[in-house]
Amino acid sequence: MTIEDKRARLRKIAAQIRYHILAATTQAGSGHPTSAMSAVELMAALFFAGFFRFDPDNPRHPNNDRLIFSKGHASPLLYALWVAAGKLPGEEFINNYRKFGSPLEGHPTPAFPYAEAATGSLGQGLSIGVGMALNGKYLDKLPYQTYVLLGDSEMAEGSQWEAMEIAAHYKLDNLIGILDVNRLGQRGETMFGRDLAAYERRIGAFGWDTYVVQNGHSFSEVLAAYEWTQTVSGKPVMIIANTIKGKGVSFLEDRDGWHGKALKKEELERALPELGTVDFNLRGEIARPEDLKPREAQIQKAAKVNYPPDKPVATRTAFGNALVRIFPQFPQIVSLDGEVSNSTMSERFQKAYPGRFMEMYVAEQNMAGAALGLSCRGKIPFVSTFAAFWTRAFDQIRMSQYSDPNLKFVGSHAGVSIGQDGPSQMGLEDLAMFRTILNSAVLYPCDAVSTEKLVEAVAKHRGIAYIRTTREATPILYGNQEEFVIGGSKVLRQSDQDAVTVAAAGITVFEALKAYDELQKLGVSLRVLDLYSIQPLDRAALRAAAQETRAVITVEDHYAPGGLGEAVAAALARTEIPVHIMAVRQKPKSGLPAELLDYENISARAIVQKVREVLSK
Amino acid sequence: MTIEDKRARLRKIAAQIRYHILAATTQAGSGHPTSAMSAVELMAALFFAGFFRFDPDNPRHPNNDRLIFSKGHASPLLYALWVAAGKLPGEEFINNYRKFGSPLEGHPTPAFPYAEAATGSLGQGLSIGVGMALNGKYLDKLPYQTYVLLGDSEMAEGSQWEAMEIAAHYKLDNLIGILDVNRLGQRGETMFGRDLAAYERRIGAFGWDTYVVQNGHSFSEVLAAYEWTQTVSGKPVMIIANTIKGKGVSFLEDRDGWHGKALKKEELERALPELGTVDFNLRGEIARPEDLKPREAQIQKAAKVNYPPDKPVATRTAFGNALVRIFPQFPQIVSLDGEVSNSTMSERFQKAYPGRFMEMYVAEQNMAGAALGLSCRGKIPFVSTFAAFWTRAFDQIRMSQYSDPNLKFVGSHAGVSIGQDGPSQMGLEDLAMFRTILNSAVLYPCDAVSTEKLVEAVAKHRGIAYIRTTREATPILYGNQEEFVIGGSKVLRQSDQDAVTVAAAGITVFEALKAYDELQKLGVSLRVLDLYSIQPLDRAALRAAAQETRAVITVEDHYAPGGLGEAVAAALARTEIPVHIMAVRQKPKSGLPAELLDYENISARAIVQKVREVLSK
Repeated sequence: MTIEDKRARLRKIAAQIRYHILAATTQAGSGHPTSAMSAVELMAALFFAGFFRFDPDNPRHPNNDRLIFSKGHASPLLYALWVAAGKLPGEEFINNYRKFGSPLEGHPTPAFPYAEAATGSLGQGLSIGVGMALNGKYLDKLPYQTYVLLGDSEMAEGSQWEAMEIAAHYKLDNLIGILDVNRLGQRGETMFGRDLAAYERRIGAFGWDTYVVQNGHSFSEVLAAYEWTQTVSGKPVMIIANTIKGKGVSFLEDRDGWHGKALKKEELERALPELGTVDFNLRGEIARPEDLKPREAQIQKAAKVNYPPDKPVATRTAFGNALVRIFPQFPQIVSLDGEVSNSTMSERFQKAYPGRFMEMYVAEQNMAGAALGLSCRGKIPFVSTFAAFWTRAFDQIRMSQYSDPNLKFVGSHAGVSIGQDGPSQMGLEDLAMFRTILNSAVLYPCDAVSTEKLVEAVAKHRGIAYIRTTREATPILYGNQEEFVIGGSKVLRQSDQDAVTVAAAGITVFEALKAYDELQKLGVSLRVLDLYSIQPLDRAALRAAAQETRAVITVEDHYAPGGLGEAVAAALARTEIPVHIMAVRQKPKSGLPAELLDYENISARAIVQKVREVLSK
Repeated sequence: MTIEDKRARLRKIAAQIRYHILAATTQAGSGHPTSAMSAVELMAALFFAGFFRFDPDNPRHPNNDRLIFSKGHASPLLYALWVAAGKLPGEEFINNYRKFGSPLEGHPTPAFPYAEAATGSLGQGLSIGVGMALNGKYLDKLPYQTYVLLGDSEMAEGSQWEAMEIAAHYKLDNLIGILDVNRLGQRGETMFGRDLAAYERRIGAFGWDTYVVQNGHSFSEVLAAYEWTQTVSGKPVMIIANTIKGKGVSFLEDRDGWHGKALKKEELERALPELGTVDFNLRGEIARPEDLKPREAQIQKAAKVNYPPDKPVATRTAFGNALVRIFPQFPQIVSLDGEVSNSTMSERFQKAYPGRFMEMYVAEQNMAGAALGLSCRGKIPFVSTFAAFWTRAFDQIRMSQYSDPNLKFVGSHAGVSIGQDGPSQMGLEDLAMFRTILNSAVLYPCDAVSTEKLVEAVAKHRGIAYIRTTREATPILYGNQEEFVIGGSKVLRQSDQDAVTVAAAGITVFEALKAYDELQKLGVSLRVLDLYSIQPLDRAALRAAAQETRAVITVEDHYAPGGLGEAVAAALARTEIPVHIMAVRQKPKSGLPAELLDYENISARAIVQKVREVLSK
């Protein structure tokens, strides 16, 4: 085939793609056809001219190039591409797009096997790409490329610039951004409209190499851009393409008011003839990837936990120790930290396994997204920062669940017990936040032994887990042989005379134990539970303890809504057992840990008082 | 005084400031002295050479220049500046810094009257400054300047670049950033170390004018930079200053391992002589501001609500209508939106009052921060985006509460009921998130009338409020005269034979009403409550209804943790009334709203089934 024949063939594929975009969205009655149409040539050229290398029969092939639709609302284009590639019947796309139960969702999710990750909340795809590219360059050391299709509106998101700076910092020359500058956002012009130079300046200043395509619908220009990407090394690259929203249909092109709107049947009939003759049998060829294997790591059994019983250790320190200890058994572990590794104590892992640690700087959104990208490539990321600062990445955390990842978040400096630094540094919403993630494990160990065991448990467990750690050193409560499981709990004090159950986790376990001692002197017996697994909750153990006592008191160093107390109240909601929730309820301030626990009425003193109050009723 | 005399005086003030920084942190036993020391000359020059204009006896003066310590951990510098200004006794600072109950918190909060806003979570101060500068330039039209002291580590935060782009877009030439490039972050070198040009390129590319100070400890250089800022117009400006962390004490200067660490007593004794003679009586003079008044708006009574009873209206539309309707009565309202005003329907307000609407593009973090800045300047910001995308700004939302703001968040497209767009666009964590904010009002009206009344109620209420709106049009349930209050609820169906109470809010109210009708046919009577005020909850009404029926069933279009059901379970936890929580518990997908409500078991069918199950026990 001559070059001109190739381009003619690509143009025919583009017409077929546009047909499917329009027909499927009209059939669904919703969707974003115009946002898909602006990137047709950009994607068809990538797929069907030999640049993109992918085994369509094995989407999980480790040498496949990766493609992430950061502008997830362009999903009709993604599906239409795979129709053109022969892996999805056109009729199936048209009839099932956005239908309940279909893998062809409104925004892509891995229910569709060619979607690498769920997108649709803007500004997240590039971070996921960063994670995949980090894996290719530094961990698996495989020559695959990671492509990310970006919208112009989403370049306003700060998370993009976090991804940009980290990609440049790590010299990710296996990462290619394709910026579809179609000028129009949801409700009108974007911040920069057609000012391609504005993007070029910013992206260049952030350390990327850039290539401007003046006409993103010209295959010769677009192909030249992809050729160019292969000449750059030592830097990530961005193709900045000038495109037209709704390209291909005169009454849609570059028009306001067509975002997120499907054509009505009669509009579709007017539009389709503009595409010319559509060849439904035309199929594009995707180049095949290499067949290199990532180096298989030797698996060795982790050493045993071994803490002297009389020396307090902060759970954050135990987290760092645990990562070092279990790595030989879980060589897929990688540690990411947001420039606080000497606080979260992931620096212990960094020192032991520097090649498996990635400094992500003070940019939590990108850190969460990159971790998802690493997880998509088979790694087990443990990602750490202060518990408070995970709130920064809630959207990325929320979105990650729709990609079925294997992701371990760790938040240190939980609660008012951090003391003098004050409320800005106190994680007081993290349990509520991570509990909202479907099927997540939310763990809050109180001592070093349980922390070690739970870090190991989450490494074994496939899914999203959160471990909350404490700043201060706490006494060793458990023997080195004690076992801890996700969904478990421990009874720390019990007798057959117990008046009330006190359920605590983390730092408040020690307050509960102090309260126990004081009340013993007064002849009152407490049942004390360590509910280290906030989610899933050990409902059976909780119910059993509750039924043998008059009430359950929960105590947590966290705001009341969505925390331990509400989890327990919900678990016991269908029973008649009264639950009393002790939690942080006043605006915290700077002070000593003990002062603050007492001020918030979650100290031993407050527990004693609450028990007496409950018993006096 | 000659120029040289002035500089000599500034150097003496700098020595006094460093003394207080070191002495107070040592006395507290914690804090960040070295991060404060790098910016001493930058701040002393601003304060005491005539640039900063501020009435120290009236911190709320509308013409005062504003200063935000985005690097909040440099708080000892802020307090030491006000010691030097004569408004805080040095002894008081030294003895009370970081003490429980003192306004001199570890990171600044407005408990200290010269702190404009609470900071300490990095990367947030510039957005707050953007809000204050927007107010000065476009709303109050007063000539004050807004200064923001920035750290170099925090420039990695994406939120900074959101603030940068919006400041340039709005040509905020009343906004001055001062970037303290001291090279060292918490655990080592920052991403760019001493590469001042890297900052210059990025900041310049984002549309700011920049000025590099090669020696940030030379008063002549720093003063020249402030002189320069006064010559720029049409753009925000950034002073990029090369500084030394720990400057002034040889064994602290530019050293690793001194972040967030106070000197021990003996180290302090070694350090202080290096400062030379300290004149404790020296006081700096701050220039006085102008005395212009913002234009007073005429207050007119809002029109009455007037919806025809038979025409369904989406609550998001009612929100837009309400803003337009009540603005004459609340002329401090300003509306901000994240490039989705045609979805949240804030575009109705934009069309009616274009000068009071600010397009914030797809950059939710900065939008939340800018709204806080506007609130600090006396405005009532209503800030809107999709409920799902507020997760993007959770850290800013969390932090804002520590500045006692008057802030109204609005989240549209709540829940699975949005339908085909799929989970990325569904707000399913927003209730949990906003409920964690201390004393916040969290409202979820089901029809247009209640939405209108609640928008009005939150405009009257000083504090943080969140209103959750629905995509689909819903029937008008209430008469135009009906009143709704924060903390209220409505009994929609009741009789003295009611078997069970169903408590719903928003979209599920209509499912509960359908279930009521179906169960009536079966001879079962339901009590139906509209719990439109999720927080504070109408505990009295809830308890009363609950006690007259056998159980409470809650139904919500939201994930279970931290939502309506847990709020109700917590409110009734000390009673014996069983609570059954119906909520979103399976991974949502694309589909029709009715299909999804049913799939998640929060439809009328599911409610009927649950009621029968409860009654059969």
